[in-house]
Amino acid sequence: MSVTAPRGFRATGVAAGVKESGALDLALVAADPAGPVSAAATFTTNRAAAAPVRLSQAHLRTTGGRASAIVLNSGCANAATGAAGDAAARTTAAAVAAGLGVAVETVLVCSTGLIGIQLPLGRVEAAVPGLVSRLGTGREDGGLAAEAILTTDTHRKEVVVEAAGFRVGGMAKGAGMIAPNMATMLAVLTTDAHVAPDVLAESLRRAVRASFNELTVDGCTSTNDTVAVLASGLGDAVAPDALTEALTSACADLAFQLAEDAEGTTRVARVHVLGAKSDADARRAARAVAESNLVKTSLYGADPYWGRIVSELGASGAAFDLDRVRVSYGETLVFERGTEVAHDRDAAARYLSAPVVEVSCDLGLGTAHATVLTTDLGPGYIEENMRTS
Amino acid sequence: MSVTAPRGFRATGVAAGVKESGALDLALVAADPAGPVSAAATFTTNRAAAAPVRLSQAHLRTTGGRASAIVLNSGCANAATGAAGDAAARTTAAAVAAGLGVAVETVLVCSTGLIGIQLPLGRVEAAVPGLVSRLGTGREDGGLAAEAILTTDTHRKEVVVEAAGFRVGGMAKGAGMIAPNMATMLAVLTTDAHVAPDVLAESLRRAVRASFNELTVDGCTSTNDTVAVLASGLGDAVAPDALTEALTSACADLAFQLAEDAEGTTRVARVHVLGAKSDADARRAARAVAESNLVKTSLYGADPYWGRIVSELGASGAAFDLDRVRVSYGETLVFERGTEVAHDRDAAARYLSAPVVEVSCDLGLGTAHATVLTTDLGPGYIEENMRTS
Repeated sequence: MSVTAPRGFRATGVAAGVKESGALDLALVAADPAGPVSAAATFTTNRAAAAPVRLSQAHLRTTGGRASAIVLNSGCANAATGAAGDAAARTTAAAVAAGLGVAVETVLVCSTGLIGIQLPLGRVEAAVPGLVSRLGTGREDGGLAAEAILTTDTHRKEVVVEAAGFRVGGMAKGAGMIAPNMATMLAVLTTDAHVAPDVLAESLRRAVRASFNELTVDGCTSTNDTVAVLASGLGDAVAPDALTEALTSACADLAFQLAEDAEGTTRVARVHVLGAKSDADARRAARAVAESNLVKTSLYGADPYWGRIVSELGASGAAFDLDRVRVSYGETLVFERGTEVAHDRDAAARYLSAPVVEVSCDLGLGTAHATVLTTDLGPGYIEENMRTS
Repeated sequence: MSVTAPRGFRATGVAAGVKESGALDLALVAADPAGPVSAAATFTTNRAAAAPVRLSQAHLRTTGGRASAIVLNSGCANAATGAAGDAAARTTAAAVAAGLGVAVETVLVCSTGLIGIQLPLGRVEAAVPGLVSRLGTGREDGGLAAEAILTTDTHRKEVVVEAAGFRVGGMAKGAGMIAPNMATMLAVLTTDAHVAPDVLAESLRRAVRASFNELTVDGCTSTNDTVAVLASGLGDAVAPDALTEALTSACADLAFQLAEDAEGTTRVARVHVLGAKSDADARRAARAVAESNLVKTSLYGADPYWGRIVSELGASGAAFDLDRVRVSYGETLVFERGTEVAHDRDAAARYLSAPVVEVSCDLGLGTAHATVLTTDLGPGYIEENMRTS
């Protein structure tokens, strides 16, 4: 299911040979009957954005927020690939457009994989007719698409959210290079809600901000991050807030799946900052803790070394008074009034051994709060990333 | 030698029992004959600054930049220790002042070690008379002080710089939690240059900016970072620029030693950014590359994956045009005009296997440049930091 759960979408995935392994590596999600339908996307803020990102941005501008399909490949990011890379992204879109009988500017393109290598365009072009002919509306059709976008992910990430009068489906890939302002991640959402492009774009922007942008794995913002949504319009007209809520719910679910399956991760932590003087301070402090290699290494070791948390809060730049700070692991208060609170250190260590843990930091200065999802840093991350070949 | 190399200083180190291991853990550097002499220091910007940092700042303000001695302990950071920690820092200074027969506000205090545990003050007080009585001017006296400030460092860091008419000596400890805006590092410099406190402070500020502040190990800014300098005035009066140059040379040497001996490090990299539009952009871009976990993990693997470097440059926020960027490993150009330059990948991998490597990134937009010193990220860092007890 996932992207095929809402009415009006077909999907599939095939092995085009971008990955040498022969695994699935080319996915297509298409509006059915043929679009264009309302579409929106948020993209990486990286100024070294990949060719497919720049092409998709241009297409959405040209159509004013309408699209017929999204084609995604894994195994090659088509980033830092020069003019040849731009041409490869355009040709991929054109091949899909021809196959579906739609205008080329209604096709969005996403790529993920290694930076700096050229897309094997001949193999992608050769695979497109088969890709189009295999499109289907079944559970496994969506599943094949979700499978074909994976890189170092260990399993598919899919979601379906049931709302009043409409549905949201989604798939994502993540793994490494995941940070606020998107991640090395691709996500495609579909909905049968009836909604205008501008409303859809604003709902997506809010949903991404409250989900993917509050996830950090290694603080790296990739060249290819894209979250795209297509709205078939076959269901009811929806109130913007209801749509935002459903999209946020779908994105948050996918973001958690990304964290759990991040490269080499053994543990996911929710870092809550409350009592901050401003929203910006709350986010800044939460990210400082969540992105700290020392905090993340402590999480790997299930070591309740709250001193590193206090230090990161103090270094974050957020308004800060050490004597007002309170730090808790789960329900256990460990730091207050400038010094340690007597607590059962072994119990805290046991708490931190769980697959999902909560760290709360009350700055005691106001009412603003933020939560950032992070992962531990262990040898698995290094093993996964130390060599690309 | 090191801190005892310039005329007018005595030093030593003893085992006070702060470290359970019985290793040296209490160091003293004193002006001889008894000061106060010109003194200056730069401190961590962390708002959770430790008790000794806050005390030393207050003492330097009170004296207008004069000090007689610096006492340093390892094994306990005396950070996040509340009112008891403040009292412990004051009492340590008072004990040293009594032993030396100087005013308490002319004694600076530095601590390094675990955050959140109380200093075993009784042991420190008991050790001070022996510490004072052992002070000496010999090579090994300075060496004992350099030994006593180490934590997870594997060896002493010392430096002597010979300048025209004066000398600079120095010692430092580093290991982890090292980032721009200081590091978890302590450094004490001595000089026999004759210089007023305000000139000394400005020279130190410049020297630190061009050395310690361009070193990053894990992006974490500690609660205790301090670089302090004492100037005995027994040598010649010096021109400010000559002093700045000598201090910079000493600090840069110590910073490199910190990088080489950082927790779990196998490799040191100098990340050069040139052709930036502004100095701020150059620093921002160099730090983005130098602090990237993905780049650092590639360095550990000696993997010439320049795509991650390009991606970090693009994500840094610096003015950026992918088509103008050039990236080199040592002398080997690997990226230019938006795409890979044909090169011998095996040779690049061999180059990256060296203990010290150079990565150059020309943004092609201007004339500003910056260099940041960084380390690789391997399993040794995690092993060292995953558990504190």
